[in-house]
Amino acid sequence: MSIFEQDLDRGPANHVPLSPVSFLTRSARIYPNRVAVIHGERRFTYAQFLERARRLASALARAGVGKGDTVAIMAANTPQMLEAHYAVPMLGAVLCCINIRLDAAAIGFILRHSETKVVLTDTEFAAAMGPAVAGLSVLVVDIDDAGGSRIGSVEYETFLEGGDPAHPVRLPDDEWQAIGLNYTSGTTGNPKGVVAHHRGAYLNACANALTFELSPRSVYLWTLPMFHCNGWTYTWAVTLAGGTHVCLRRVEPAPIFAAIAEHGVTHMCGAPVVLSMLIHAPDSARRAFDQTVKIATGGAAPPSTVIAQMEAMGFAVTHLYGLTESYGPSTVCLWQPGLDELPIEEKSAFMARQGVNTPMLEEAVVLNPSSMQPVPADGEAMGELMLRGNTIMKGYLKNAAATEEAFAGGWFHTGDLAVMHPDGYVEIKDRAKDIIISGGENISSLEVEEVLYKHPSVMEAAVVARPDEKWGETPQAFVTLKPGVEAVTEGEIIAWCRQHLAHYKCPRFVTFGPLPKTSTGKVRKFDLRERAKG
Amino acid sequence: MSIFEQDLDRGPANHVPLSPVSFLTRSARIYPNRVAVIHGERRFTYAQFLERARRLASALARAGVGKGDTVAIMAANTPQMLEAHYAVPMLGAVLCCINIRLDAAAIGFILRHSETKVVLTDTEFAAAMGPAVAGLSVLVVDIDDAGGSRIGSVEYETFLEGGDPAHPVRLPDDEWQAIGLNYTSGTTGNPKGVVAHHRGAYLNACANALTFELSPRSVYLWTLPMFHCNGWTYTWAVTLAGGTHVCLRRVEPAPIFAAIAEHGVTHMCGAPVVLSMLIHAPDSARRAFDQTVKIATGGAAPPSTVIAQMEAMGFAVTHLYGLTESYGPSTVCLWQPGLDELPIEEKSAFMARQGVNTPMLEEAVVLNPSSMQPVPADGEAMGELMLRGNTIMKGYLKNAAATEEAFAGGWFHTGDLAVMHPDGYVEIKDRAKDIIISGGENISSLEVEEVLYKHPSVMEAAVVARPDEKWGETPQAFVTLKPGVEAVTEGEIIAWCRQHLAHYKCPRFVTFGPLPKTSTGKVRKFDLRERAKG
Repeated sequence: MSIFEQDLDRGPANHVPLSPVSFLTRSARIYPNRVAVIHGERRFTYAQFLERARRLASALARAGVGKGDTVAIMAANTPQMLEAHYAVPMLGAVLCCINIRLDAAAIGFILRHSETKVVLTDTEFAAAMGPAVAGLSVLVVDIDDAGGSRIGSVEYETFLEGGDPAHPVRLPDDEWQAIGLNYTSGTTGNPKGVVAHHRGAYLNACANALTFELSPRSVYLWTLPMFHCNGWTYTWAVTLAGGTHVCLRRVEPAPIFAAIAEHGVTHMCGAPVVLSMLIHAPDSARRAFDQTVKIATGGAAPPSTVIAQMEAMGFAVTHLYGLTESYGPSTVCLWQPGLDELPIEEKSAFMARQGVNTPMLEEAVVLNPSSMQPVPADGEAMGELMLRGNTIMKGYLKNAAATEEAFAGGWFHTGDLAVMHPDGYVEIKDRAKDIIISGGENISSLEVEEVLYKHPSVMEAAVVARPDEKWGETPQAFVTLKPGVEAVTEGEIIAWCRQHLAHYKCPRFVTFGPLPKTSTGKVRKFDLRERAKG
Repeated sequence: MSIFEQDLDRGPANHVPLSPVSFLTRSARIYPNRVAVIHGERRFTYAQFLERARRLASALARAGVGKGDTVAIMAANTPQMLEAHYAVPMLGAVLCCINIRLDAAAIGFILRHSETKVVLTDTEFAAAMGPAVAGLSVLVVDIDDAGGSRIGSVEYETFLEGGDPAHPVRLPDDEWQAIGLNYTSGTTGNPKGVVAHHRGAYLNACANALTFELSPRSVYLWTLPMFHCNGWTYTWAVTLAGGTHVCLRRVEPAPIFAAIAEHGVTHMCGAPVVLSMLIHAPDSARRAFDQTVKIATGGAAPPSTVIAQMEAMGFAVTHLYGLTESYGPSTVCLWQPGLDELPIEEKSAFMARQGVNTPMLEEAVVLNPSSMQPVPADGEAMGELMLRGNTIMKGYLKNAAATEEAFAGGWFHTGDLAVMHPDGYVEIKDRAKDIIISGGENISSLEVEEVLYKHPSVMEAAVVARPDEKWGETPQAFVTLKPGVEAVTEGEIIAWCRQHLAHYKCPRFVTFGPLPKTSTGKVRKFDLRERAKG
């Protein structure tokens, strides 16, 4: 045994489980009177934020919630969501945030699968939650923030009043303990329950604070749903920094611009659709503001026109990439010197990359999934994006097979096909299951969709594999036209593609009409593949 | 067993030991061509920095260094120090940085106590190191950066050339493994070897990056010795951020101003003496610069005149507090809204506080050391500042008794006497062993010294307890006068104190002359107490 291992054990003075719960206790001690949460006319200081979280923890404990129990919440981006992000972990319990667009059947599946004991539910979603909890032995607490039917046995504020404001703040016994449970939307089959741990939540929040330079002066606007991987861990990161959370019930241009102008918002996140919404906002909804607002977007690369328009409006756009399994952001297209001097087309081509691993993720690499060896970093060779590090989930709840598959070979398999550029930046080309193999050649459905999106009449497009006797598979396009444009024929769309793509990549069939989507707005390619089979 | 503990174990995909070694591999991958280290005319990119660290690790491994072995280094703030901070931990070995002001006897004690296998030593310090290694079976590597005698068997650059640039980068098996060994200067008796762990080094670097808002645009000037608690972990924090390290062999005004002006320095740290040096720099040494330079200082509160003068020169001063046992910074006097609007006297009174715990330290509290209960947060009640969290050392090497004493009751005892202000900010009043108890009343030696320092003729002052038949103890002052001032009498000094202090706090004896100091510039109060005994 080395001399450095003798009489030098961990103890309570030098070892504390990493948990984001510590962020709130610290900020409440340091910034007791600073505004922590803004929601409409309501303001909570950090001292009040902590007190409310302790009351909630106490009330939940009195309702029988303890270590390893699940508390589900279905709510908009309101203070209760933030409070639950600290109160539930304080008990060693697990917070399960439910997508507010799910129907009763999907919610019911989640509540049963997660063995939920208490449900906190915004009255706006009573129509879906009501049938879901029927017959289940759960305590239902109504969050009456904006009206709607009550289905629970107690309202949230009354529940809180019954809690002890001095309830002890307990950290988990072990930082590997579960803190969150987030069900993937599942474009096929039943959703999987992604289990997050305290250690990863703590470190991913640090990574966000470092990458996006959060500080006590930061004002974060909640345009990203908090139910999306715990708001990409910003629910914890903003508190770590001692910044201000600005709640937002509805993601609409007028309240967004109002919040930016009135509260001095410095940071926000959102899917590309949020950026489009701001760009196309009516003049009546717009407000002038002086600061530059950092906006992080993910899920799809922001097109060059979107970047240019957002910058002209006073935003600085960052592209990032992540999954529920990686607590949201796992890679970020980090700024490099000289980038701002590039022509917008080159700059946006660079910014379309998913980028490099965030500071607390150990590695993001592109491997050949058969050999598990890195593909050449030439921007051409395709492989699977794989991640490894402390900001990766524990695994899937009650699904050892899926967990094992996801972690095969000691890496988390994202299922996304990507190339590695010579400068070490990753760029995703397609979902593994969305790639089309035609005559032995890989065709990226994203590449074909990009060309379709550039057609002046196309509003939305999706490309999937259609079984083909000769080629094995061939691309089929599904296209939604912009409202009010002249009809476009299948032949015209194919001709457009042949102008911009190698011929073997061009769709041979085009179907017009609306695209089927999941509750989080992703195109259900599984359904389209079924339709393409004929 | 909870459902969240079934089939959800740690594995290589989702659990990696926290180690600052990861910061260098990541920055080398993301910023390969960015300048990582500047030293005079030399420049190393991040790719080169990593390559040199790998060569050093390889050469050390070939020399027999492995897990749990000690590598000592005695060097100025040069690139070799930074390289050693990654190469040695990569091997699972432990880096022991030696204070460059120590004499041969002290160095010899450290090398024997730490069981050092390899010594890297700057030729400037050969006169002290030569006799220290005589008779020891260690490999000595000379760092020939600025001339001087060679005492080793190989020069550093030759040693590096023999190393493999592709040497594998290994993380520790366990983040609790030792990474560093730093001997406290010890104002009494033999120094103690403070053992730092990878987990704490990683987290304290994160805390620094967050607190001082380090970013890839940061340029950090090495005015703080890297041998001081691994440069307060900035050796690792700057690399985490992807910033630039600017080395500095001599802490003198001309090279400091030159570096600030030429390299666009954004951050630096140093003892208050560094601030004084800049304020009193001759005009010929000064250079104009446009940026605001953040400077963190610790060890003593910066006086109001120093803050005002530094601000006028373009610096933003932050006061922090820490010990070798806490990886440097453990508390920081965090900025609060409204602070900048206060009159300079009030602002500096606030800034003299040690402040609040850094984000990754769990708690910094003031406890009654007998009851281990918090003292009232009234800015009056005195207790001992105690710390708890992941950025506290493993303990003292080969000194279980001292470790146990330091961690008694589950807290790290700093030995500093402090009050807690109503706003949660800590302010240190004295070292526990420096407090004077006269007639049952506590007298803070710092408070008396502060009054002495305000006397126009006093350059330095120290106050200790003198045994007294009637009062138990009574304060005795040791004073060094400014050069060239008129002689001041004992009676005049005592009269000055009586004008500004309660009478029982005033020294009854004053001795004039130079103060005895340790190698790190701390006054040896132990020696003064011996002298006060008569």
